[in-house]
Amino acid sequence: MMDRAKALDAADPLAAFRESFILPEGVIYLDGNSLGALPKATTAAMTRVVEKEWGEGLIRSWNDADWFAMGTRVGAKIAPLIGAKPHEVIACDTVSVNLFKLISAALAMRPGRKVILSEPGNFPTDIYMIEGLERQGLATQRLAPRDQIMDALDDDVALLMLTHAHYKTGELFDMAAMTKAAHDAGALVLWDLSHSTGALPVDLNGVHADFATGCGYKYLNGGPGAPAFAYVADRHHADFAQPLTGWFGHARPFAFSDEYEAAPGIEQLQCGTAPILGLTALEVGVDLIAEIGVDRLYSKSRALSEFFLECIVERGLDLDLVSPSESTARGSQLSFRHDNAYALCQALIARGVIGDFRDPDILRLGFAPAYLRFEDMAEAAKHLAEVIQTEEWQRDEFSQRAAVT
Amino acid sequence: MMDRAKALDAADPLAAFRESFILPEGVIYLDGNSLGALPKATTAAMTRVVEKEWGEGLIRSWNDADWFAMGTRVGAKIAPLIGAKPHEVIACDTVSVNLFKLISAALAMRPGRKVILSEPGNFPTDIYMIEGLERQGLATQRLAPRDQIMDALDDDVALLMLTHAHYKTGELFDMAAMTKAAHDAGALVLWDLSHSTGALPVDLNGVHADFATGCGYKYLNGGPGAPAFAYVADRHHADFAQPLTGWFGHARPFAFSDEYEAAPGIEQLQCGTAPILGLTALEVGVDLIAEIGVDRLYSKSRALSEFFLECIVERGLDLDLVSPSESTARGSQLSFRHDNAYALCQALIARGVIGDFRDPDILRLGFAPAYLRFEDMAEAAKHLAEVIQTEEWQRDEFSQRAAVT
Repeated sequence: MMDRAKALDAADPLAAFRESFILPEGVIYLDGNSLGALPKATTAAMTRVVEKEWGEGLIRSWNDADWFAMGTRVGAKIAPLIGAKPHEVIACDTVSVNLFKLISAALAMRPGRKVILSEPGNFPTDIYMIEGLERQGLATQRLAPRDQIMDALDDDVALLMLTHAHYKTGELFDMAAMTKAAHDAGALVLWDLSHSTGALPVDLNGVHADFATGCGYKYLNGGPGAPAFAYVADRHHADFAQPLTGWFGHARPFAFSDEYEAAPGIEQLQCGTAPILGLTALEVGVDLIAEIGVDRLYSKSRALSEFFLECIVERGLDLDLVSPSESTARGSQLSFRHDNAYALCQALIARGVIGDFRDPDILRLGFAPAYLRFEDMAEAAKHLAEVIQTEEWQRDEFSQRAAVT
Repeated sequence: MMDRAKALDAADPLAAFRESFILPEGVIYLDGNSLGALPKATTAAMTRVVEKEWGEGLIRSWNDADWFAMGTRVGAKIAPLIGAKPHEVIACDTVSVNLFKLISAALAMRPGRKVILSEPGNFPTDIYMIEGLERQGLATQRLAPRDQIMDALDDDVALLMLTHAHYKTGELFDMAAMTKAAHDAGALVLWDLSHSTGALPVDLNGVHADFATGCGYKYLNGGPGAPAFAYVADRHHADFAQPLTGWFGHARPFAFSDEYEAAPGIEQLQCGTAPILGLTALEVGVDLIAEIGVDRLYSKSRALSEFFLECIVERGLDLDLVSPSESTARGSQLSFRHDNAYALCQALIARGVIGDFRDPDILRLGFAPAYLRFEDMAEAAKHLAEVIQTEEWQRDEFSQRAAVT
């Protein structure tokens, strides 16, 4: 398969973009869906923001380096990646905090309805943030399995909140169909795009989504703990309100008024002072992904995972794939169930193939299309086959759990 | 006065620490209370976290570089600066978001009481965050002028929320007396330490404070939009709960359970994924301030502002000081009321003396004791006198307001 891999790499229109990233020697990185790789341009941008803008410009950089507009500027650059208009997206806070704002906004727009509907096994923080609003007595959590969500949409549901690409299996929701069903039931819709943005095409405007949020540190390559983004459809800008009413969301923060007056547009999603170092790194990643283009990334993403499956079949592996077998039905990842997934993952890491273990029994491999090669697929499949076929994973050292995994 | 300034600098035990900061040529920086200067060690730390930990270590650095513990580690280092125990402080989110968590926690601990008491003219975000909880129907804002706060503490007050050093005037509250009064009325107390931490001694444990939060980008020199910190007295750790229940505050985030279970200690204040780049810069600033020591910083802070006042008197200036005239009664700043404060501030900036304008008529000068010299005081006073005495501030260019000031 290595010959075919090399031929595919030679024909890959995105091949040259690998050079835009730092990738350590001897590593095949199949975890860009957990923390994206470092763009080469990030180091210069961080030097600029730290040494020049902060060190030399000091407080003046809020104006001179346009720090005040960073959240909206980076948001506007993310917008075309997710089918939104530039003024509908802002980069701020974390996915978790943004979920709280947007769920709260939905509840306020649907008085008399308290149910937030999601699915069990959604990414934990999504479910936990509903629990936070339950603590406040403002929301009621309802979780329905994927095939029963439509039936669970009744008059009590204020908001349907789903993750487009499932973090564990990669399974995709039909955003258009789910959004329409929710709207037909009088509910609003919030999409978590953490495992989609930068790898798959998303069309928030096209499906008439109300709200969305997503992660900056996965396929957007914004760095560890990068700021997240949030989207509010502009038809709601005049009448949405959220409770994290900090000074950066004020219409005139420097009037220092005692009365809160929300900024008129998406800016009202900001709360505290914008995290300039994190936004600077995020902007570099977003610029790079925008330059490559989501449609091209999506094509390559599917080709990579399809080729990887071919490679493991050819290696004689018969693994339990829990991701959809059709590449159009999954995100940019493949997940396999294995009784010894943890040890398997550790044995691969020892060979330089970095994937993810997800409790209790999932080996998750992510295919970041911006910097992975077909050669990496063939090589990773070889390692996976060897680790399993030689039972290398049974070594004691691979079953010791790290403190945090 | 310059001779005396030079003598004071020569005798200053903290003089050498100026070399630990980057300070641009030709600038006298009197705005470290808005954005602290760049520690020299920060650039190496940022290179390490970006190039080595992110670029080379990738996802492994959550364990190998101990990213998971950064919030608690930095919090534990801030703790001694504010009279707290290491496990009572965590670095996370922004001051605004932390206010929301802590106000919410207080409301839950005082069922039947809904009033959050503060003072008019408190830093806007503090007041705005109460308004956010009013939007949710969970809180009632009550603002009482400083001399009427004691009388406003009645059976409806769940929380007294005050800022130790006033952002505009620098006036200090007596933390012990106010905390005791609130407790006597059955209320809890939350202190905003944004304008105190790293410049003034604070003794949260000594005054029996319940909650506190503060800023990382002022006297802690953590960089623009640095993460904030939050404190919860350990006597409340078993029974406090807050509604921003994200996955980083979970007892076992990587169990990926559908049920939220709060981490047992201060970690439950975390919400989304920790902002590693921002925390890295903050840690450098905190380490440096801890090394210098708050008591020495406080002595020098008072000496600087007292000397500055002597200098302007000697220059024949008779300014309207709105800060307390006793240095023990104010934070590390001096604020002057002037009808043309904006133009005055701009004229000073044009001469390289960077202070702050605060709407509508305040010129605010901050004295960051870690890196300012007595020589800077004499020099700044000279510029201030010249700008006023020659009416230089009347030039047209100094009255043009920037888009954001």
